Amino acid sequence: MNEKVHYTVIGAGNGGKAMAAHLALKGFPVTLYNRTLGNIAAIKELGGIELESYEGGPRGFGQLALVTSDMGQALERANIIMVVVPATAHADVARAAAPYLRDGQIILLNPGRTGGVLELAHVLQQRGCAADVTVAEAETLIYASRSEGPTQVRIFRIKDAVPLAALPATRTPRVLQALSPAYPRFIDGTSILHTSLNNMGAIFHPALTMLNAGRIESTGGEFQFYIDGVTPSVAHVLEVLDRERVTVAAALGIRARTGMEWLKMAYDATGATLHEAIHNQPGYRGIKAPPTLNHRYITEDVPMSLVPIAALGQRFGVRVRGMDSIIRMACIVHRTDYWRRGRTPDRMGIDRFSIDELMRYVTEETA
Amino acid sequence: MNEKVHYTVIGAGNGGKAMAAHLALKGFPVTLYNRTLGNIAAIKELGGIELESYEGGPRGFGQLALVTSDMGQALERANIIMVVVPATAHADVARAAAPYLRDGQIILLNPGRTGGVLELAHVLQQRGCAADVTVAEAETLIYASRSEGPTQVRIFRIKDAVPLAALPATRTPRVLQALSPAYPRFIDGTSILHTSLNNMGAIFHPALTMLNAGRIESTGGEFQFYIDGVTPSVAHVLEVLDRERVTVAAALGIRARTGMEWLKMAYDATGATLHEAIHNQPGYRGIKAPPTLNHRYITEDVPMSLVPIAALGQRFGVRVRGMDSIIRMACIVHRTDYWRRGRTPDRMGIDRFSIDELMRYVTEETA
Repeated sequence: MNEKVHYTVIGAGNGGKAMAAHLALKGFPVTLYNRTLGNIAAIKELGGIELESYEGGPRGFGQLALVTSDMGQALERANIIMVVVPATAHADVARAAAPYLRDGQIILLNPGRTGGVLELAHVLQQRGCAADVTVAEAETLIYASRSEGPTQVRIFRIKDAVPLAALPATRTPRVLQALSPAYPRFIDGTSILHTSLNNMGAIFHPALTMLNAGRIESTGGEFQFYIDGVTPSVAHVLEVLDRERVTVAAALGIRARTGMEWLKMAYDATGATLHEAIHNQPGYRGIKAPPTLNHRYITEDVPMSLVPIAALGQRFGVRVRGMDSIIRMACIVHRTDYWRRGRTPDRMGIDRFSIDELMRYVTEETA
Repeated sequence: MNEKVHYTVIGAGNGGKAMAAHLALKGFPVTLYNRTLGNIAAIKELGGIELESYEGGPRGFGQLALVTSDMGQALERANIIMVVVPATAHADVARAAAPYLRDGQIILLNPGRTGGVLELAHVLQQRGCAADVTVAEAETLIYASRSEGPTQVRIFRIKDAVPLAALPATRTPRVLQALSPAYPRFIDGTSILHTSLNNMGAIFHPALTMLNAGRIESTGGEFQFYIDGVTPSVAHVLEVLDRERVTVAAALGIRARTGMEWLKMAYDATGATLHEAIHNQPGYRGIKAPPTLNHRYITEDVPMSLVPIAALGQRFGVRVRGMDSIIRMACIVHRTDYWRRGRTPDRMGIDRFSIDELMRYVTEETA
């Protein structure tokens, strides 16, 4: 039976290549799709991907069933569609996929950032997609990996216990079950509001980048992002943004993990303050800052992580002035309107929902 | 006649000491006041201040007529009261001075930052001060100086052409005339709205500090504040804040100098962008960053420079979202409400004025 589960991986970046190779090495038939053919030409030519990893981890040649930039072909045999693209591309993927989706297919965003499934479902609906597909999002990407050549990829770590949730949450068990032969490490994330509001990158990435903007740009990122960049005052800003996030979640009736709880869970890092906890965590040592401000910590995490959380706050009466300040600075630096480009309630299709309606939408099967 | 003009210098910091010593060496009778007696005990004991300066500049022992921490005594013989304290102390100085002021005295804030004279006049009025004093503010401190010991001070530079304005502007000529024997370098600043809205520190100091917050705190300020800190993106933020400031001025009917015009005027620095102009200016080389975020670039310039400009913008319909973001970040970092502590229209006594009424208040003598 496992033999028959066909995976289609959308996106051939660091994460998508690792996932496609790993799944192939586990014996699953795998299609790899990338919008730009040039980026996968060498893989198509070779017929697969060379995977390297940490000691004791998966390695070898992952032979792929199909490598294509044609969405129709890519989805034809797919049972499970793993989307591994920047969140800014989720809507495009949904528009491209809508005509080809079939009943019973599962789409998993790896990860959704904040509101990924909401936006995906809204686009599919707008496009008149009538297929009964199940859409779900992971809280984070299960791999830490890096491309080491056109057909090579290296996995540094496979994360434990990545939460995921489907829309509605009643469908989460079937997604977990379908994935479990390949990925027993996914766990139930309760609801997509939980996976979306537990997005820690929303808090850590943009603020840490902006409060070190001058240093990033003048040194090309030649300093330790967390060790040098998270000073007591910067950590305090992160704590304030984190409290705003947890408050937005509370307004929706959700108990989100705090940044401190997440550090404890993910790294067993503890301390009296976020500053202490981050500096107590050896895993942060040696991680360089982004080489430029034109980095996904802003370009992806502001519109797709911070804006949707702030927008939910504004929609449901929570002050998010810290978040708003960071978003505004990012807008100025990048000469764009991240509010307009970001996942606002209308883009997620929930702008007319009350809190109760939103909760029902994410938790209950509609008739 | 010049012999008879008695100066009282309020504040014995870097600037006040330089001013008191310089005025004494020019032959004026000078009283030096400082709220805390301990800070002037050595000067009182010695009877004056040792002044050093740049080549060809003033130097020698400036003998003082009186050194005191008693405001009544300090103002007794004063014709001109030079206030050289952080702007956060202007209201306290006004409260302390109110009972002792006499008709004909001149009070000059060195500098007023933004709204200094408005706040001063409002406090004097609240305190029921009936004396016909003339209140005025300089756009910047005329000295660049540093204390080199309890009774020593060194002047690095005496600025050319410092604009000042009185309230109302019709009184500016008499202030310029009274000061001219000592300070021929003061020029007519048009009105206190001009001197207040041409406050370039409001734009440069807080934003540059916040966008380099991590670096300041992790290195103790061991980098070049302008050369390393003003990167292209940081400079762009400064340009946006500068445009907000000039727009607020325009809403009040005032043509404020742009940051670029100021760099040209103050340093003959030019360039296509603020980034270029600042990097073209050798005077910025070697200036270190503040050693900590607990620095007047935030603690003084946010409440006394940025908040009043932003508040005028909000009061008269100009969007100041860049300024608001920087203020908000400063509030978070310093765990305080700089809006509440800052110079808002009510604190400046102008919250019930229309634009026309405000313009009349600053330009015309009331009956």
